[in-house]
Order: sequence, then structure tokens, then C-alpha cells
Amino acid sequence: MTQKSAEAGPAKAAKAATTAKAEAPASVAGYRQPTGEETLSIVNLNDLEAEAAKVLPKGGFAFISSGADNQVTLRDNLAAFERIQLRPHYLVGKPAPETKVTLFGQELTLPVITAPMGAHGLAHASAELGTARGTAVAGTLMTVSTAANKTLEDVASASTGPKWFQLYLQEDQGKSRELIQRAEKAGYSAIVFTIDAFAPGSSDEANRLGFSFPPSLPFANTGTATFKPSLTWEDVDFIKETTDLPLILKGVLSPDVAEKAIKRGVNGIQVSNHGGRQLDGVQAAIDALPAVAGAVKGRVPVIMDGGVRRGTDVFKAIALGANAVALGRPVLYGLALGGAKGVESVYGQLQAELVRTMTIAGTANIAEISRKYVL
Amino acid sequence: MTQKSAEAGPAKAAKAATTAKAEAPASVAGYRQPTGEETLSIVNLNDLEAEAAKVLPKGGFAFISSGADNQVTLRDNLAAFERIQLRPHYLVGKPAPETKVTLFGQELTLPVITAPMGAHGLAHASAELGTARGTAVAGTLMTVSTAANKTLEDVASASTGPKWFQLYLQEDQGKSRELIQRAEKAGYSAIVFTIDAFAPGSSDEANRLGFSFPPSLPFANTGTATFKPSLTWEDVDFIKETTDLPLILKGVLSPDVAEKAIKRGVNGIQVSNHGGRQLDGVQAAIDALPAVAGAVKGRVPVIMDGGVRRGTDVFKAIALGANAVALGRPVLYGLALGGAKGVESVYGQLQAELVRTMTIAGTANIAEISRKYVL
Amino acid sequence: MTQKSAEAGPAKAAKAATTAKAEAPASVAGYRQPTGEETLSIVNLNDLEAEAAKVLPKGGFAFISSGADNQVTLRDNLAAFERIQLRPHYLVGKPAPETKVTLFGQELTLPVITAPMGAHGLAHASAELGTARGTAVAGTLMTVSTAANKTLEDVASASTGPKWFQLYLQEDQGKSRELIQRAEKAGYSAIVFTIDAFAPGSSDEANRLGFSFPPSLPFANTGTATFKPSLTWEDVDFIKETTDLPLILKGVLSPDVAEKAIKRGVNGIQVSNHGGRQLDGVQAAIDALPAVAGAVKGRVPVIMDGGVRRGTDVFKAIALGANAVALGRPVLYGLALGGAKGVESVYGQLQAELVRTMTIAGTANIAEISRKYVL
Amino acid sequence: MTQKSAEAGPAKAAKAATTAKAEAPASVAGYRQPTGEETLSIVNLNDLEAEAAKVLPKGGFAFISSGADNQVTLRDNLAAFERIQLRPHYLVGKPAPETKVTLFGQELTLPVITAPMGAHGLAHASAELGTARGTAVAGTLMTVSTAANKTLEDVASASTGPKWFQLYLQEDQGKSRELIQRAEKAGYSAIVFTIDAFAPGSSDEANRLGFSFPPSLPFANTGTATFKPSLTWEDVDFIKETTDLPLILKGVLSPDVAEKAIKRGVNGIQVSNHGGRQLDGVQAAIDALPAVAGAVKGRVPVIMDGGVRRGTDVFKAIALGANAVALGRPVLYGLALGGAKGVESVYGQLQAELVRTMTIAGTANIAEISRKYVL
Repeated sequence: MTQKSAEAGPAKAAKAATTAKAEAPASVAGYRQPTGEETLSIVNLNDLEAEAAKVLPKGGFAFISSGADNQVTLRDNLAAFERIQLRPHYLVGKPAPETKVTLFGQELTLPVITAPMGAHGLAHASAELGTARGTAVAGTLMTVSTAANKTLEDVASASTGPKWFQLYLQEDQGKSRELIQRAEKAGYSAIVFTIDAFAPGSSDEANRLGFSFPPSLPFANTGTATFKPSLTWEDVDFIKETTDLPLILKGVLSPDVAEKAIKRGVNGIQVSNHGGRQLDGVQAAIDALPAVAGAVKGRVPVIMDGGVRRGTDVFKAIALGANAVALGRPVLYGLALGGAKGVESVYGQLQAELVRTMTIAGTANIAEISRKYVL
Repeated sequence: MTQKSAEAGPAKAAKAATTAKAEAPASVAGYRQPTGEETLSIVNLNDLEAEAAKVLPKGGFAFISSGADNQVTLRDNLAAFERIQLRPHYLVGKPAPETKVTLFGQELTLPVITAPMGAHGLAHASAELGTARGTAVAGTLMTVSTAANKTLEDVASASTGPKWFQLYLQEDQGKSRELIQRAEKAGYSAIVFTIDAFAPGSSDEANRLGFSFPPSLPFANTGTATFKPSLTWEDVDFIKETTDLPLILKGVLSPDVAEKAIKRGVNGIQVSNHGGRQLDGVQAAIDALPAVAGAVKGRVPVIMDGGVRRGTDVFKAIALGANAVALGRPVLYGLALGGAKGVESVYGQLQAELVRTMTIAGTANIAEISRKYVL
Repeated sequence: MTQKSAEAGPAKAAKAATTAKAEAPASVAGYRQPTGEETLSIVNLNDLEAEAAKVLPKGGFAFISSGADNQVTLRDNLAAFERIQLRPHYLVGKPAPETKVTLFGQELTLPVITAPMGAHGLAHASAELGTARGTAVAGTLMTVSTAANKTLEDVASASTGPKWFQLYLQEDQGKSRELIQRAEKAGYSAIVFTIDAFAPGSSDEANRLGFSFPPSLPFANTGTATFKPSLTWEDVDFIKETTDLPLILKGVLSPDVAEKAIKRGVNGIQVSNHGGRQLDGVQAAIDALPAVAGAVKGRVPVIMDGGVRRGTDVFKAIALGANAVALGRPVLYGLALGGAKGVESVYGQLQAELVRTMTIAGTANIAEISRKYVL
Repeated sequence: MTQKSAEAGPAKAAKAATTAKAEAPASVAGYRQPTGEETLSIVNLNDLEAEAAKVLPKGGFAFISSGADNQVTLRDNLAAFERIQLRPHYLVGKPAPETKVTLFGQELTLPVITAPMGAHGLAHASAELGTARGTAVAGTLMTVSTAANKTLEDVASASTGPKWFQLYLQEDQGKSRELIQRAEKAGYSAIVFTIDAFAPGSSDEANRLGFSFPPSLPFANTGTATFKPSLTWEDVDFIKETTDLPLILKGVLSPDVAEKAIKRGVNGIQVSNHGGRQLDGVQAAIDALPAVAGAVKGRVPVIMDGGVRRGTDVFKAIALGANAVALGRPVLYGLALGGAKGVESVYGQLQAELVRTMTIAGTANIAEISRKYVL
């Protein structure tokens, strides 16, 4: 972390718990992202946004933090969680809660994984390598985006933790096949196919700042970003035919798509509105979850992302049918503020909150969390 | 654009993308409206209001921007759009979307037209001539108000784009007939009859500023504004008898009026609350649309205006039954900030947003947008 | 108006349209209320509150403007009007609207009367005399409170306009009888019996300021305020037996009380929550109106007060079943800012707004305003 | 009260009505809490929070005032009261209201008691002794927390008023039994068993400030706080077997728990979400009350706490089924601002408001307050 950010951090949420080394800001072709590594003392994940804004270049922060258009969906992703009321069960005599879950055969310390996000280099010099290391130390799973600033092989080498590869289909089917095969070879254990981002989203604030991806931060897996501009169910078939890895469909917002996906052989469903970054005006992710989970009926795992900031949010998502949630922006803020250690700190805070929530609510493990814990 | 406005522009939304010529502000009898012509770099149409406030005389801006009384309807016109949730359809394999529509036989680049508004001279020295040119270059249709500062003939000459003439009935029926006949002769392709403005609306802010129409900006079509103070269905008959042009009834808020209008031979319905400028407390236009469109059942085209600022708003209106939407204040703000080129820029931004929305939502053309795309 | 207020006035809403005479502030035993007389140029009645705050002693303004406790009901009285949506009827060919009504045989220029309020001397040196004169010139009816600073006889002499006497029952029944008989003799045409104020309300802001009634402003009708602390239906019977004047029950919020009152011979119902000054948490007056009016079924006139600030509010109340509305605080603000002429100005503004509303809504007279004009 | 607080007080709500002695702030191991004793002049209980913030150490104020996580429940505890509408009954001829109630055979001046709260020493040097004295002078009941800074015996000696002992079960059952027996011996008349706080809550603001309990303020009853980390219905049985004192279960939010508790021999139900301090996202206490009271059907007394600030709040809780309400933070604010006299002032204000509410609503005593007084 730069000296400036090391000073800014302690003032609010992300206080350096270890001595931060004074490092010069990384300056590659003009984009100066943080480089520091330090454990963070976090009060809550919401506070991280303002802290990250202090250490990140304005354009990068705008790109990461904002949503599409009027940001109605971005705000509703968070507000919807606050509308859901919890129903604790007292006098049930539970032992200290256990947060472990198993997802596609892999054991995770908690039911929270790192969501696929592009260009971690905007947040920190270590880019996806730092995120992968921090996620692994936290004992959970990293989803690596096609639009990463580090190659999927380098990310795989950076840690031994479980990893999924998120696929943006390429215009050239051969290149898509090549990406999948590289992911297989590098040890990724699932493919996440994003269905809601064949056209770019648009952030007013990033546009106001004239933000564009800095040349110093190329898309390491594909060189340029030439995504297939139109997707079909045949694309799903193509991926299923290309690999035996489990396939997770990300961007599902309705029960009918979930049903169709399962019939088509999809192995997991990720309820998501892309963090409110694509189509402004779609439903909050947590509001879309119950109907999707109701359609899935436990046949495949359901993951949800969008608006998770608190242990109570994780609890609510599980109670409403998710097997796990994916965490997005807070991971990048942790990365910006403390590198891999910052990411680890983010997970540490969320797990502590989840344990506290489960304790008071009266649940001994993740499997016990069910609909009866929400009003 | 004046130097002052050229300076103000870049600070926020409406950055001059071309080099602005330094022009002196127009000063006719004390009202100094902008005169500049420049392409605008627009982030979103909402931002234009604050930019326009910087370049317009206070009274003129108040008259244009404000609504009646407590402005409940003005605000609700916008808020109602945000309450409507979109339902995208993924994996449907659509080509790049086509925004063209045909309205009364005329092909338009996008389903957005310029709403009838009086006194464009308040916004820019070119008045309706600039609006007509910008609208035409954008490939769409201009509605010219009876209360224009330029004669309908001059506006007709200003561009070759499609135009409708909006009629405020005059006390003297002969004068109304004359207006209609002039419109026919000048090549206007439809008559828009406004039914909600036989009494003037009232803006608190304009009243506070003591605003009145500057003598330098006369109503060019009628000299003075002596509108018929009471309207009946017989007035509809009179227009139908006077002209063979299609007749669009503007100000419809309920299904029964739409039904009656169609039975009376009206050729189009415009759902509108006059931009919240007439009766404060009426329903948001987009909230009134579904029932009206349900009654019309496709027998005649339905247009809606009121609160459209985003591509998602256009999409929502089409999904709820409109064939096209009419754009009001943002057109005048574009005119104020960049003349005809500013108007063109406004349409360019809205079309880009509409294309993005249609792409992500999964619709290949305007005809495909339907109720199934809203929750 | 004092020089200070004459200066303050023009800055916002209540501009002096006539030349204000510079008068010294009235200073009686330390309470210095305004004394000026001037026609006001009003943009809307809401703006008057801030203007009145500039010219009134803090304690007096707090007493007049505030509501009980958390002021939930005070705020809801206004907010409830904004939740009601209007439904205009177009193309109905109505003549210019007529706002006259007849109430208990007396013709009023508009269906708005002055609500009973105590201690007008807090607002202006002319106290109830000024309010009575202004109300009369506006062509409508004044309700004089038992807690007036001028005797009911003096108020009766101040103008020839119609007047009702509002009765707070006295502990001593003989004194109550005497008040009723004095009102009869002085020409009051009805008795308004307030049923919700046998215990004083409480204003946090007035308490903070340590406000108490200045000794210079005695209750002219009763000397001290020794109100009967507990009221019953027998008290209603007592009034009916004491006088042949029509009896209006004020403070009705539910249909059962209205029904009981009519059966007991009451001649009018006033829906009111005492301007949110008594029991915080009761329903907004306009929300209570429809059920009460539905129970009354036209057998006796229904008046409502609470939150009326706009012509659209008057229209909505009539549409929901009121025969007339009573105006409270805005009358005192007008009195404070311009004496009798200020009161007249307040009514002038409200009538102009009502005429505008009726014109656009499509109603030719008050009798035509009905439930079909609200959604 | 210290000089600093004596100065701060009069500026807003908590004005010293008696002459405050200038006392030095208590400084024990660095935590400097107020020591003054004075009657407060209170406008409303809401205002006390800001006043208390001026006289309390930041960490202590944060610990007392804040709720868990995003404080959704904390805020909703208050907002929910404002959503409930009152329905007064007029013309019912009631005498001046009587607020006395009898709870488990003990007569209280009003149906408001002091809720169990830990560590009153954070608020005032007199700690629980001051609260007990003030509560007793006010004529009502004090609940003493296991986590008190004074021994339960010392609190018992401090006043002769009725007292209950709130029990946090200890890990060692023998120690729990000892606590219960000490309470019996010291004259406590009931045991309140808290079921929602076997895991600590968490306050962001206290965490930000790095607050921890000052060593100078030990838990006087238990030395350290080693609470039983998991509770069961067998714990309820254990208490019932250990003592013949009435047992009140605190933290009930659902009818099924109330039903089970009564079947298990519990003698009272306290509806509570621990002041929003434990699980953020649970229902507002007043919203949970009606269903719980409906299940209890009068078999045992129902107490509620959470968000009570006004006489109307007390009235609403009684109307919705509570026999009494417990008051939390405002008692500590009163203690901070005026010691025992401050606590007495808080009750004085609340009783005055309750009397005013009952008078206007038309209820002569607490027993008359029922569901028919809310809409």
C-alpha cells in the first residue's frame, strides 16, 4: 500500500493491523494502482468502498464501483437485503456454528466465493494473483474471469485453492474451445458461463471521467476482448460437449431459464444481475433467488451474487435457497487496500459475521439454514 | 454557444465535442438565449437539465423545466419509470438490434419523436428551426406546436424530415381551419390535437421569477395566443371534417377516452399529462399507458410522452404498449446547449442507450419488445 | 406590515403588491406581533409559512405552526393529499367554472371557510378582527373560536360576512349557555362544537422555546381558559337544547361518530384532527373523509380541515365528499403578513388555483365535483 | 452533572431545572462518566440522545446508543411505532386518566418499567444504584441485569422499589443457581430470563472506536462475563425448579415460543429484540407484539420493549396487547444527564405524555386501552 493509502486507511474502516511497508505506487502507462500488502482491520464491508476510493485512481474506482445507467438495480441489490426480515429460533441448544460447505465436491471454509470480475489490475498491482492467494488463504474458491489481467495459468499457479473459470464466449469458437481446454489443463474445476454480458454495460460515472482500460492492463487471456455478441442455448451445448467440467450458468433471473438449463445438462445455476452493471431496472438478485431456487428444487447447486455485504446477507441468501453466495466488489476493495491479505481480511470479517448470525439465529451449520429463518 | 456556456458545458454532461465558435449571446428585447451550434458529448439526458440551467435565462429555464403546482406529477413521471422492472431474455441468439419503426407510413430511425412544445425561442435563437433540423438529421419526426416562435411554413422549410402539426384550437373556428390548411399545404403529415391545455398551467418557479413571454418571441403562427377555452368531442369532429390528415389525440389518460376517440375516427392516441405542466396530481404517463394501450388493442398507434430520459424508459414504454414515445424537455435542453447539433446529440445518446438495452434484453427489433420484457 | 417584514416579504412568496406603510411593531407586554396591512402577491400557500416565520415572534410562530409530539399527523395531513391522484375529464365542453356554494343557506364565493383557531393576536395586532374582515371581503365564512383574543361581539361588528361560533364547553354550564346566547345575539349563524380538545395539545417546539400565552393577549370571551375536561353526547344534547342554530360537530374521524351525531340531531359534520395539534398518530384528515362522507350520505353538510394548501386539495376534498373545507394556518400566515388584506390575498390565491383546477379537470361548478374525478 | 454537561444541557432538551452543583468528572482508570444529580426539564425522550452524547465518553455512548450491524432493526423499532395509527374515541365522558397498573401483584405508577441493561456505570458514576433510586421514586419497577456494575445486593439496598433480576445463564450451573438464590434473598420479585443474547451483539460504531468495557467498571455480580453459549428449554426448566419466583421469558418474537413457554410454566412473556442490538434484521418489537399477545390470550402478563419514546408509544403497545412496556436507552440517558433525578425526570415526562394521550383518546385507565384504539 502506498504511504498515502496507509495513512488514509486507519482513519476509518480498513486499518492496517500489521506494519505497512512504504511502497511506491505502481505507475504503468499512467495508471497508478496500489501495491501494498497488509492485513486489514475491518468494521464492515460497506465501509471498504469509501476507503478504496481514497487509494484507487478515479477512473478505476468508478469502473469498479458503479452500476449501469441510473443505478436503480445497483442500489436495489443492497436495499432488497434490508427488506428481508430474519426469524431467529431461540432455546434450541445449538453448538458453535460450523460454516463449512462442499460445492461440487470441494470443501470450502464458508459458503462465500469470489465472483468473477474482470481486470483486477485496476485495483492492485498483483491483480488476480493477489485475489487468488487471498481467497485461497481464506479457504474458499476463486472464480477467474476471461477478462483477467493475468493469464489463467498464472492465476492457477498463484495458489492451490479451488478455482473456477468464467467464460466469455469468443467470436471464434476455436478460441473459446482453447480457453476451456487451457482451464481444464490448469486445474480449474468448473466453467462459469455468463449469459448476460455479450454487450458491454455502461457506467455514467466512468463515462464522465472518460475512463478506458489502461493499455498497461491488457486482457491477458485473450489479448483483445472480442466477445461473441449473441448467445444461444446451442452455446451451452457447445461448452457441455467441449468439457466434462461442471458447467454453471451465471445470470439466471427466472425459473424458466433455470429449468431449461438443468434439462440441458447444466450443473449449477448462478442467480445474478451482474452486480447491476448490465441492464439497469432488472430485479434485485436476492429478490429473484426464491423463485429460481424453487424451480431448481435442489437438483443442482444455486449460487447468488449481488449486494452481499454482511453475514446476515449470506444467511438470508442461504435461507432463501442459495447453496453459496459470490462476493464481488468488496473483494476488489480488500485487494486494493491490502493485496492478498486484504482479500483474506474481507473473508475473515464476513465469516465472523456469519458465525455471529448463525449463533444468534440458532443454526449449527449451513445445511440447517432454511426458509423458516426468514419471515 | 456563447463563451460562457461553452465553458460551462465541459464541466459536466454536455461537453462540446467539436470546437465551439465564440458567439455573442442573442439579446432581443432583453431575453438573451444561446445561439451556439455544437455536437454534445452526453453522458445521460438527466444531466442536461443542470447544464441547460447554466446557459438559459432564469425565467426561460423555469418555464421550460418546471411543472404545475407542487410538481407531484412532474416528479412521478420520472419515478414511475424507475418502479417498473425489466425482465431480459437471455440465450435467444438475437442479431444486433434494429430501432427503426414506421409511424403513419413514415419510417423513423428510432421510436422516439420530438414532442410538441411551445416557444423554442426561449431555448435557442434558432428556435423551432434548430429543433426541426436536429430532429430530421437524427432521422425522426418533429411535432411543431401552434405556439411556436417560427411559422409552421418556416419550420417546414428548415428540414425535409417528417413533421406533425400540433393544434391548439382557436376561439375563431375559421382561424383553426386556416391553421390546419396551412399545415396541410406545408407538408405536415398529421394533426396532433391537444385536449388538456385549454387553460394555462402554472409554474410556481416561473411565477416567483415574474416570468412572462418576451415580446421578442411572438407566437409566430397566431400572433397572440387566443385558445378556445373549452373543448368538446365536436371539436374532434370539426378537425376530422376539415382535413384528411391523420388525427392524433394528445392528453389521453384513460381507456374510455381512447375508446371513444377511436370510435370517433381518431387515428392515433397520445398518452400524456402535458409533462406535468397542467393538472398537478394526475397519474404518471407511463402508469396510465398500459390501460390505454389495452383498450386501443392495436387499432391505432399509441404514443406516450412524459418522463422519458433513458433508453430503458423507451424500452419500457414500448413494452407496455406504446408504438413510439415523444421526447420533450431534453430536446429543448439539447437545443439550448448545441442548437440543431445539440438536438441531434440528444437523439444519438438515446438511440445508443436503446440499442444497448435491446441487445441485453434480447430483442432484435422494436416489434419484438412486448409485455414479457417487464416483470 | 412592519418595515422588517416589508423587507422580508418580497424576497420570496409574499411580496407586497401595494405600498406598505412603515409601522412600528406592536409591543404589548413584550410580545411584538406585526401590524401592517397590505395585499400580498402569493405564489402558493406553502411559501407563506417561511415568510410568516420571519415576521412573527419565535414562540408565537412555533405555537401556530407546529403539531403535537413527533408531528406525524401534521405531516401526513399534507402528504395524504399528494397521495391522491386526480382524474380529469376532457372534451366535456364546460363553461368557465363557478366556485360559489351555499352552506346552511349562506352563499359563499368559494367552498373554503376560515377554520376556528384561537388567539389570532399571536399573528397580528388586529387579531380576529383582521381575519374576519379579510374573510368577509373574500366572500366567505369566518369561524370564531371561543379562545379568541377579541370578543365575539367585536368580531361580529368587524364585518358583515357570515360567521360561525366555535364552542369550547366551559366547566360551568351556565357560562357555556351564556356564550351560545351571546353568539346568537351577535348574529352568528351556527355553533361549531369541538370534540377533540378538552385536553391541551402539546408542541415540542413551543415547549423548547418556553412559550406561554402573553398576558397582553387574553382570551377575550372567557377571561381564562377553563374548558370542560370531559365531554359526552349529553353535551351535544345540551347545545341542541340551548339554541336553534345549526350545530356542527368538529373533530369527527370515523363513520360511527358521524352516524350517531346525525341521529342526535347534529346539523353538520367537520372531519378534522385539529390540524395534527391534539393526538399525534391519528389518521390524516383527508384519509378519514371518504368513510365519514359515505356514512353521512348527504344528510348534512360535511366540512373537512387539515392540510389544505392548494386548489387541487380543495378539489380533492370536495371530490371525496366534503361540501366545503376549512382553512387554518395559511389564514393566520396571511394575517401575519398583511392583516385583513393578507387574509383576502390568501383566499384570492386559493380561489384562482381552484378555478384553474376545475377548468382543467372539466367541472363547471362545485356540485359537479365528484368521486369520478379521483383515481 | 459536570460543568461541561451542565452547560451543554440547557442548550437543547435536558435543561437543569435545579441548580447543578459543579462536580469534577469521575475518572476511574480513564473512563470519565458523569456524576451530577439534577432534575431535568425534558421536552421529549428523543432529544435526550443528543444531550447524552455531549456528556458521555464516545465509546460508552456508542455502546449504549447503537444497534447491531446496519441498525435496520434499531431504526425500525422506532419507525414501526409511527406507522401505527391511533383511533381516539370522543364524547365518552371519561374522568382524568389513571395510569396505575399491577404487575405480578406489585402496583406501579405507570405501565412502564426499567428494562434490563448491563453496565450502567458507563452512563453515570452511581451506575445501577442511581437507576434503581430514580425508578423507585418514579413509582415503578427496575430490572437489574446480571451484567450490572453494582452487585444485585447493593442495588436492592439502594431503594425500596420493586425489582426484578435479569439472568444471563452462566456456563457453570452452580453459579446460575447462586445468582438466582442471591436475587431471592435480596428481595427481587421475579426472574427475567433473556433468551436472545448467548452470543454478543456487535456495534459498528463501538468497534470503530475500539470500545471495550473499562477495567474500572467490572461486572459486579459475576466478575467476568462467562455466559452459557447455548440455551435450551431445559434451561427454562432449571430456573423454574430453582426458584418459586415468577419467571419472565425475554426475547420472544413469535407466538409459538410464547405458547411453548406458557406450557412450560413461564409466568410472563417479554416481547423484545434486545433493542436491535443482537440480530439485525429481525422484526420491530411492536410489530411482533400483536401475534404474540394473541397467542398468550391473557394467560400471563406480556411486556414489550424496543423503541418506546412517547406516551403514544406506550399507549399503542398497551392497545396491541402489552400489559406494560420496558424502557431502555432513555433511562440511561436520563441517568447520564441527571443521575437518579434524571431517571425520575424521564419517567415524569413519559407519564405526562401518557396521561395526555389517554385523556384525548378517551380512556380512563390502562385496562380500558384496547385494540379498538388503533386503526
